[in-house]
Amino acid sequence: MQTSPLQDSLLTAFQGGQERALARVLTLLEGGRQDSRGQDSMGQELLQAVRQLGKRSRVVGITGPPGAGKSTLSDALISVYRARGETVAVLAVDPSSPFSGGAILGDRIRMLRHTHDSGVFVRSVATRGALGGLAQSVSAMLSALEGFGFDHILLETVGVGQSEVDIAQVADSVVLVLTPAGGDGIQAFKAGILEIADLLVVNKADLPEADRFSRALSGALELGDHGFDSWMPPVLQTIAPSGTGISELVLALERHQTYLRENNTATGLEARRLKRARFEVRSSLLQWAEQLTGAAGNAVFSRVAQGQISPLEVARTLLEELNRSSLS
Amino acid sequence: MQTSPLQDSLLTAFQGGQERALARVLTLLEGGRQDSRGQDSMGQELLQAVRQLGKRSRVVGITGPPGAGKSTLSDALISVYRARGETVAVLAVDPSSPFSGGAILGDRIRMLRHTHDSGVFVRSVATRGALGGLAQSVSAMLSALEGFGFDHILLETVGVGQSEVDIAQVADSVVLVLTPAGGDGIQAFKAGILEIADLLVVNKADLPEADRFSRALSGALELGDHGFDSWMPPVLQTIAPSGTGISELVLALERHQTYLRENNTATGLEARRLKRARFEVRSSLLQWAEQLTGAAGNAVFSRVAQGQISPLEVARTLLEELNRSSLS
Repeated sequence: MQTSPLQDSLLTAFQGGQERALARVLTLLEGGRQDSRGQDSMGQELLQAVRQLGKRSRVVGITGPPGAGKSTLSDALISVYRARGETVAVLAVDPSSPFSGGAILGDRIRMLRHTHDSGVFVRSVATRGALGGLAQSVSAMLSALEGFGFDHILLETVGVGQSEVDIAQVADSVVLVLTPAGGDGIQAFKAGILEIADLLVVNKADLPEADRFSRALSGALELGDHGFDSWMPPVLQTIAPSGTGISELVLALERHQTYLRENNTATGLEARRLKRARFEVRSSLLQWAEQLTGAAGNAVFSRVAQGQISPLEVARTLLEELNRSSLS
Repeated sequence: MQTSPLQDSLLTAFQGGQERALARVLTLLEGGRQDSRGQDSMGQELLQAVRQLGKRSRVVGITGPPGAGKSTLSDALISVYRARGETVAVLAVDPSSPFSGGAILGDRIRMLRHTHDSGVFVRSVATRGALGGLAQSVSAMLSALEGFGFDHILLETVGVGQSEVDIAQVADSVVLVLTPAGGDGIQAFKAGILEIADLLVVNKADLPEADRFSRALSGALELGDHGFDSWMPPVLQTIAPSGTGISELVLALERHQTYLRENNTATGLEARRLKRARFEVRSSLLQWAEQLTGAAGNAVFSRVAQGQISPLEVARTLLEELNRSSLS
């Protein structure tokens, strides 16, 4: 795939390890949109270029309800990895409000804290607009962070909804962070998110109900469908601010990575990477679907609203139009 | 559109007001899937048939974080509507766990409570599988409930995530239920969900921080972008179990419906119906996208995972294949 001279110099700086080039690439990839004919926009060539660098990081998804302490936990992990001289990028998927106009997470505070450490890179993705766009932005930005050569990438998402389940598909290991308080457990059950967790962390384990809650989680996990040779998610306890349980978490993450490498088939690393690729393709399709309906005129939707034509017929027509234009 | 003899008798029973026929139709629509060539499956003809009945209900979306008291609030609304002799259907989008094997909400309790009242119909949709499928199931089931002739439909979703934002697009009025406790406000801000709320309800208004929280919400709303003639979401206080504030909520919902009818253009009822039609078309496209990636073989994703081919190229090829097969 060809790149422009401007992109060439950007890529050179990127490969040279310049964080400003990384930041620029991420911005291009976050904003990059395909047009309605499915043609490349500026970000796509760049994306393929960074993917072709063929570098891989250990991607850890960290998810859980707001207030569970995900950021503090990430910080504790960062400290451990940095002490070993390993580099870490944090990609925080940050549901933003049109009222606040952007991120209101504690990321800024963290960014300040790590601002003089070139081995740590923090970036937020705001979840404006529709889901397809977010999914595509996240997987593209993840590829860029990998291409830049970080040893670890922490992918933080806030919530226990479907978008978290979706986004977790791009991680090698998924850590679900819950607290004994606030009905987190029930929430996790209801969202079906236990299913995607490779490790469960009961944070704020100094709260009174921590042990009972941990046992309940273990019990729920045992009800799940685990094969003889498959990974059984451990339930860990942490108190993130004091660092209690963090080294156990690091160890458990390493055990999971080892498991993935050693079971490089149905449930292992290869399967994870295939899942991620599938997700990336699906994200492209989703984004097209959204753009197609965005571009169609009100007249057709008015007929749908009046029951004169079915949504399915319109969907089929839109797809045929897309193909006629991109095939011509 | 043609229907089969079996569907004809089902439709006759449906139009005759038989709840068992409604239940059967809903099951067919929930499970209905288009095949990879975009052909109709059993549910699609049925869907178009119930849509062509041309009936409309008042569709109220009720959303908010778990534990905010959405179900109790819905119950209170049901009581008011039933006292007037109006019929109500509840469609509860219920994030289910693979471990629990289905819905674990309080719906069953409610169903028992209303089981002898033929003017109330409660149905859950489990959010198994991917987002496109859920969105399509919900909009199809909504059309069936409207076709059956309910005066009101309450569409409950649990959470403050993107799927709630999505699903709220099919409602005429969206009620966001929050509580003074538990950082709900921040959650609502972060998820950008204030933007989609037509009415805000601070439930559990007997909690100490209720007034301060309500004022903060009003303040946040005033920062939003409201035109001179557009609807300003009111902030209401309720204590659902005791019925406090419920008649004010009913009144506010009626004011919103009147507003929608009287501003039948950019922000009114017509605009809502167009938005819903757009959502329905988009859902069909999303589901195809998911089916396309589901059906493709591992070999192609393996090449994506190794950086040999971009996700975008694969997406384009899949679309072209879909079109070749459905155009031939």
